[in-house]
Amino acid sequence: MSATYTNESQAFVDLLKKLKAYSEAVGMLYWDLRTGAPRKGVPGRSETIGMLSTDVFKLSVSDEMGAYLDTLEAKMDELDAPLKKMVQDTRKDYNRNKLLPPELYQEYVVLTSKAESAWEEAKHSGDYDTFKPFLKDIVKISQQFIDYWGVKETRYDTLLDMYEPGMTVAELDRIFGDLRDQLVPLVEEVKQADNKPAFAFLKDTYSIEGQKSFSNFILNQMGFDFTAGRLDESVHPFAIGLNLGDVRITTNYLEKDVASAIFSSLHEGGHALYEQNISPAFAGLPLCEGTSMGIHESQSRLWENLVGRSLPFWKQYYGELQRTFPSQLSQVKAEDFYRAINRVEPSLIRIEADEVTYNLHIIIRYEIEKMLFNDNLSVDDLPEVWNDKYESYLGVRPTNNGEGVLQDVHWSGGSFGYFPSYALGNMYAAQMMHSMRKGMPDLDARIENGELAPIKAYLTEHVYQYGKLKTPSDIIQSMTGEALNPQYLVDYLTNKTKEVYQLS
Amino acid sequence: MSATYTNESQAFVDLLKKLKAYSEAVGMLYWDLRTGAPRKGVPGRSETIGMLSTDVFKLSVSDEMGAYLDTLEAKMDELDAPLKKMVQDTRKDYNRNKLLPPELYQEYVVLTSKAESAWEEAKHSGDYDTFKPFLKDIVKISQQFIDYWGVKETRYDTLLDMYEPGMTVAELDRIFGDLRDQLVPLVEEVKQADNKPAFAFLKDTYSIEGQKSFSNFILNQMGFDFTAGRLDESVHPFAIGLNLGDVRITTNYLEKDVASAIFSSLHEGGHALYEQNISPAFAGLPLCEGTSMGIHESQSRLWENLVGRSLPFWKQYYGELQRTFPSQLSQVKAEDFYRAINRVEPSLIRIEADEVTYNLHIIIRYEIEKMLFNDNLSVDDLPEVWNDKYESYLGVRPTNNGEGVLQDVHWSGGSFGYFPSYALGNMYAAQMMHSMRKGMPDLDARIENGELAPIKAYLTEHVYQYGKLKTPSDIIQSMTGEALNPQYLVDYLTNKTKEVYQLS
Repeated sequence: MSATYTNESQAFVDLLKKLKAYSEAVGMLYWDLRTGAPRKGVPGRSETIGMLSTDVFKLSVSDEMGAYLDTLEAKMDELDAPLKKMVQDTRKDYNRNKLLPPELYQEYVVLTSKAESAWEEAKHSGDYDTFKPFLKDIVKISQQFIDYWGVKETRYDTLLDMYEPGMTVAELDRIFGDLRDQLVPLVEEVKQADNKPAFAFLKDTYSIEGQKSFSNFILNQMGFDFTAGRLDESVHPFAIGLNLGDVRITTNYLEKDVASAIFSSLHEGGHALYEQNISPAFAGLPLCEGTSMGIHESQSRLWENLVGRSLPFWKQYYGELQRTFPSQLSQVKAEDFYRAINRVEPSLIRIEADEVTYNLHIIIRYEIEKMLFNDNLSVDDLPEVWNDKYESYLGVRPTNNGEGVLQDVHWSGGSFGYFPSYALGNMYAAQMMHSMRKGMPDLDARIENGELAPIKAYLTEHVYQYGKLKTPSDIIQSMTGEALNPQYLVDYLTNKTKEVYQLS
Repeated sequence: MSATYTNESQAFVDLLKKLKAYSEAVGMLYWDLRTGAPRKGVPGRSETIGMLSTDVFKLSVSDEMGAYLDTLEAKMDELDAPLKKMVQDTRKDYNRNKLLPPELYQEYVVLTSKAESAWEEAKHSGDYDTFKPFLKDIVKISQQFIDYWGVKETRYDTLLDMYEPGMTVAELDRIFGDLRDQLVPLVEEVKQADNKPAFAFLKDTYSIEGQKSFSNFILNQMGFDFTAGRLDESVHPFAIGLNLGDVRITTNYLEKDVASAIFSSLHEGGHALYEQNISPAFAGLPLCEGTSMGIHESQSRLWENLVGRSLPFWKQYYGELQRTFPSQLSQVKAEDFYRAINRVEPSLIRIEADEVTYNLHIIIRYEIEKMLFNDNLSVDDLPEVWNDKYESYLGVRPTNNGEGVLQDVHWSGGSFGYFPSYALGNMYAAQMMHSMRKGMPDLDARIENGELAPIKAYLTEHVYQYGKLKTPSDIIQSMTGEALNPQYLVDYLTNKTKEVYQLS
């Protein structure tokens, strides 16, 4: 940082930089495991990651850290904004980790690591009963954690705040309620529609080389900086910021599905643009990352969906895709491609869901997690509740638990409160896009003209540069002039869906 | 380790494992920097490597480490062999680091980091005077280090022992003297030979894809385990063992030189076979690496030269190379290829030297380093001494210092005593091959038949499995029944050169 600090502030910052350096090392080891580490190196690698992570944990709750926090909190008024935010965030982590009895935390670490394997088997076999005892214990310990951390407005609020600081059950009930009540009828309308888009051509055979070339092309167009990042392949696509000049993304090329890699590249590329464009003043500091899971997800969804599934975007870029795959696409029009990638279909699996129904998958999970933690819903009853909600909101009912309550990894790792981030990202993105459009009335024309740089510049100005300095609500409020409002997402989805399905 | 240890032994082993885990992380970060890290991530990455390396250093000289060493040394007789060797090695490092005043060490770290940039510029311009002040300071501080560490038989012995434990000036004088006195006339004889091998075809155009495919093929033939390692590309080829199940090598493909990547793959592959086949009992411990620079180099040279530049080897594998590059090689016979890759030519640059003259390049550096540390040769006089020795041993004289005394990076980093390892590797390799041949009289027939597995098995039995448990002299003595003897290398080089040049 450019600021000059007192000795104790500097010592605190140095310790934070060290923690960040350790995180870069752990991130590098993790990235390598996912992108190409040889199979036989995995056990040793996992032990190494475990040892480094333990040291990061110990440093983060060390007496040294506690003493710095006490000293700096005593004179918060004298600190500059970045330092103040680092003290606040670090205190939050410190308390979170320090308030738990070490034995209980250890028990939880062992339990969740066993639970993930048990979940994998159960998902495969569809047998919920083999996973249930693990889930019961995870919920039980999570409830104990809430007691140690302190109950916020409701018990589930305590979990929500970990992923989206400041977010509450009261607010989500209102927002998700609005969203659900307007999307369920929309989905119903689509089901009845006569004019369904053809999409069989998306499932033709598309060479991996051609897909790679197009992903690289589209990332360059977005402004992804290949001198400050890489694109690799992994089974599950992800983005990871190792340091400010090294932000990596992965994608997964499927020969029989041309859309998969395009939209995962746009999605991960959106995450990466965020982390590549944080202010250089924050390099090496904990401020050098996204401010919350929800805001991070808004950036991936904005590029993937609001920009990348728009008609102007494909009016510009479809020609390049046709040139890459002439035999598959020369007879398909841009408008038909646009309709195909925007079709809406109620389905059982979240990660395969379209833009509209995706939010309902999330709302179901939110409602169930809230019942688990606030209303003592029994883990025994989860499959029934899950299936009923799918039937009620989406009109589909799982025939086995593998495609139902067991489909996601999150609960086996105890990540309750994480799911809402995905839908928050969609809502933030729609609201940001609406606001950007007000500032740039010719936005569609620019996109259609292949000018994506103004979008990146706008997001850098309002979101990217701040890293973790601003809270999610600060960002959305100062960028759009109002708090999070789900109506922008509803309007966007309604308009697009009606256009795609040619509804009145 | 499978052994059951007392509490204090186990705590010592746990600390060593932690150090090894940190080394894996640093190694991973380094590997990534060399193989594909984006340019803008380099400054942050370098800081991260610096912070982790500092922590490794601090742990290795911590009071905790000192206390373990004191306790365990008091009962060495009760320890098993692996533990005893780890106590000895760790004590050596501990003393080495602990005996230096921290300020002097810090000064040295800063100096050598500046010196490397100065060296790069000086090498480029050929201007020795700009590098000389740095080199003077590095020699001066190295001399002080020797005083702190304690002078062994001679001052230079103290440096030699760091890279080849137990090696002495007395022994090297004898060995290198023998080698020099027999190789200089051999080189002279080759110069006069009429029958020089043609080699222009090696510099034809060879596709990178074809070269990649052949490198992969040849590594598979050697028994390189691709499920416990990777082959990548970097400007300077290297091998790095991250953990027992993850040993990586790199090579560099030159379109206008088909031999370069083949022999660097064989060379780095030899290093990798060593580290992939250490006993699983040593996984995660400091014993899980090569026992010395010289023995490590013997394994790379054995595969690269003794096996990889032999006629039986190319009788087997040349067909595959021809099939890969039919237009370039279909008119070239295996015997002519063999002669071309074994031509001997006195040259100025070490890393481009052939098997015979290479050793003379090393002997020159050894003699000069010894003069610097034992005879107070002035840094001012280095270029003159260098050029005179090249003229005397190789019959060539540099016309500028860039192709003379400034050609190697080693001295800018203070690595005095390292060069001999390269020639030791050649001598160990020839002696080991001689001994292997006695145990397997049909060795050449097996190689010609593509049976390389017995070589790997033999080396695993006598070298690889022990990792760092045995000393270099233990290994060569128990494997070959005698101490290091340069005559095997001389005989091998003489016989092959006479055959290639059809000398009497």
